Amino acid sequence: MPELRQDPITKEWVIIATERAKRPHDFATVRKGEEIPPFLASCPFCPGNEAQTPPEVFAYRSSGEKNSSGWRVRVIRNKYPALVRRGTIERREEGKLFRKMDGVGVHEVIIESPVHNRLIPLMENREVEEILFAYRERYNALKKDPLIKLIIIFKNHGKSAGTSLEHPHSQLVATPVVPMHIRRRFEVATGYYDDTGRCLLCDMIHEEKALEKRVVMETDKFIVFHPFASRSPFETWIAPKRHLSSFGNVPDEDIPDLAGVLKTTLLKLYKALNNPDFNYVIHTAPVDDENKNYYLWHIQIIPRLTTMAGFEIGSGIYINTALPEETAGFMRELVV
Amino acid sequence: MPELRQDPITKEWVIIATERAKRPHDFATVRKGEEIPPFLASCPFCPGNEAQTPPEVFAYRSSGEKNSSGWRVRVIRNKYPALVRRGTIERREEGKLFRKMDGVGVHEVIIESPVHNRLIPLMENREVEEILFAYRERYNALKKDPLIKLIIIFKNHGKSAGTSLEHPHSQLVATPVVPMHIRRRFEVATGYYDDTGRCLLCDMIHEEKALEKRVVMETDKFIVFHPFASRSPFETWIAPKRHLSSFGNVPDEDIPDLAGVLKTTLLKLYKALNNPDFNYVIHTAPVDDENKNYYLWHIQIIPRLTTMAGFEIGSGIYINTALPEETAGFMRELVV
Repeated sequence: MPELRQDPITKEWVIIATERAKRPHDFATVRKGEEIPPFLASCPFCPGNEAQTPPEVFAYRSSGEKNSSGWRVRVIRNKYPALVRRGTIERREEGKLFRKMDGVGVHEVIIESPVHNRLIPLMENREVEEILFAYRERYNALKKDPLIKLIIIFKNHGKSAGTSLEHPHSQLVATPVVPMHIRRRFEVATGYYDDTGRCLLCDMIHEEKALEKRVVMETDKFIVFHPFASRSPFETWIAPKRHLSSFGNVPDEDIPDLAGVLKTTLLKLYKALNNPDFNYVIHTAPVDDENKNYYLWHIQIIPRLTTMAGFEIGSGIYINTALPEETAGFMRELVV
Repeated sequence: MPELRQDPITKEWVIIATERAKRPHDFATVRKGEEIPPFLASCPFCPGNEAQTPPEVFAYRSSGEKNSSGWRVRVIRNKYPALVRRGTIERREEGKLFRKMDGVGVHEVIIESPVHNRLIPLMENREVEEILFAYRERYNALKKDPLIKLIIIFKNHGKSAGTSLEHPHSQLVATPVVPMHIRRRFEVATGYYDDTGRCLLCDMIHEEKALEKRVVMETDKFIVFHPFASRSPFETWIAPKRHLSSFGNVPDEDIPDLAGVLKTTLLKLYKALNNPDFNYVIHTAPVDDENKNYYLWHIQIIPRLTTMAGFEIGSGIYINTALPEETAGFMRELVV
């Protein structure tokens, strides 16, 4: 029979209902990396087309000047930004009840490779390292801006995950507010810290490690697992084994290990699920809280195998059609 | 420039960034009602195929016996239920941190018409009335069960909205927990009530009515508007003009008005957006709170024109590419 599980961090419940996996489905089929051309003249992210994008804000280069080809990883402002660095954070009232403010912030695109079909799971580890270094570089540059309260780095892969461009890229959005969604997690984690003197997420990692059954892989510094209250099939977390609230503070020497783990994790998903659409998000403490002991940065990967529908919108409860113990076991055994 | 708006009920912010609407898109094209056949021999919800579904729990009938044809609206248990009425609500611990319980509850399907292509926007008002009466009937039958804490009635229309079957239907899920998602809304609404002595949602309705610009239509008893902090383009609310926390308590005499409003609202969306995929949800107080003064039941309609992606997953902030004032104005003028 189905099971309800409570997420220890959000206190939300999820329903694990594996019978529902037998419903008729047609999962979206995505082209595999090998079937995508390595270069596309019409792609604004392909080399030679640098003038078609907003100006570069950062790059790792082998040759060439800013806004020309020769880059290995390139960071630009988003052409259609959700937030822009203009205006003020002053709140304004509309009528008696409604509150608004300028859409102040930063929205950047991290182009992960000059090669149009070079997906992270098919990269060499050192290429993935540079993406992560670029993430951290931009994170730490933007957090100095006193208006910025939260920096979210994420990747949308495939159409059902919200990508509008095929060329491998991730995004960064820096917001001038800490959303309630994040504050609530902090409330729960702070309450736990006040009670126990320990980080809730670190304790969760220790539990998963001790229980073993949901662990996919481990290295010296990182652990990969399918969380107890996974909200969708094959939801995967990559978390550091030592306490650190902010992604901005990940030390240099941890990046190669993280690159290997991220690449292997995505390659396992790529092989097992035939290049699924997915999102990943780097969860990290709000900028002003990055030295607090209540939170642990981590990467959450969500393959888009199911659809958020009316029930999820109405209740906030997700229905997961797979048991995380089973999916984790499957991924653990999968050799890549 | 983009704008941030705070939802007064959830206290979450949304980003209104209309420039992003210019990004290349290909919206899913759905068959219009007229292009779908009125009967499909292979459809388990079409008349004559009653034996292919789980047994009927309720129906409005013109003729025939239970589980035969002759029904106008038919309610059945979901064949692949997310929750089932077995087990207990006792919580169990796994390790030191994880909490779970049996997936106790009820999951029903409301088949809205025997005719395979009879979409609500194409129905006569009296047909829509019967759907609403069936909703209320099942709501009030299930709320008597002491294990049931929340009843969510919703509709998924179209593949991107999570439908697996084309035949017009809605669903009801009765849960044994009040999700945090709902508790949080109640916290905000209760705080507002304690401060002001008034219902937050009623005040919001009055504000929208006074401001006029986001109102699509009004009747004696109901108001239709695009909310100030709409999370996606053409998000639409239908709310009663008089305070009532629970959908289960809507009086008989209000149902015909509501049916007309729901049908007209969905017909406007059908015409303007070419039969878009959408979800609707009836938001209502938890069963044990249905006589409290802090909440107002309402219907939230979300056309699936944009995709929840990594940023939304990470931040809880939705990016809306349309101004609710503009979309409401457009819908207000649209004659159907």
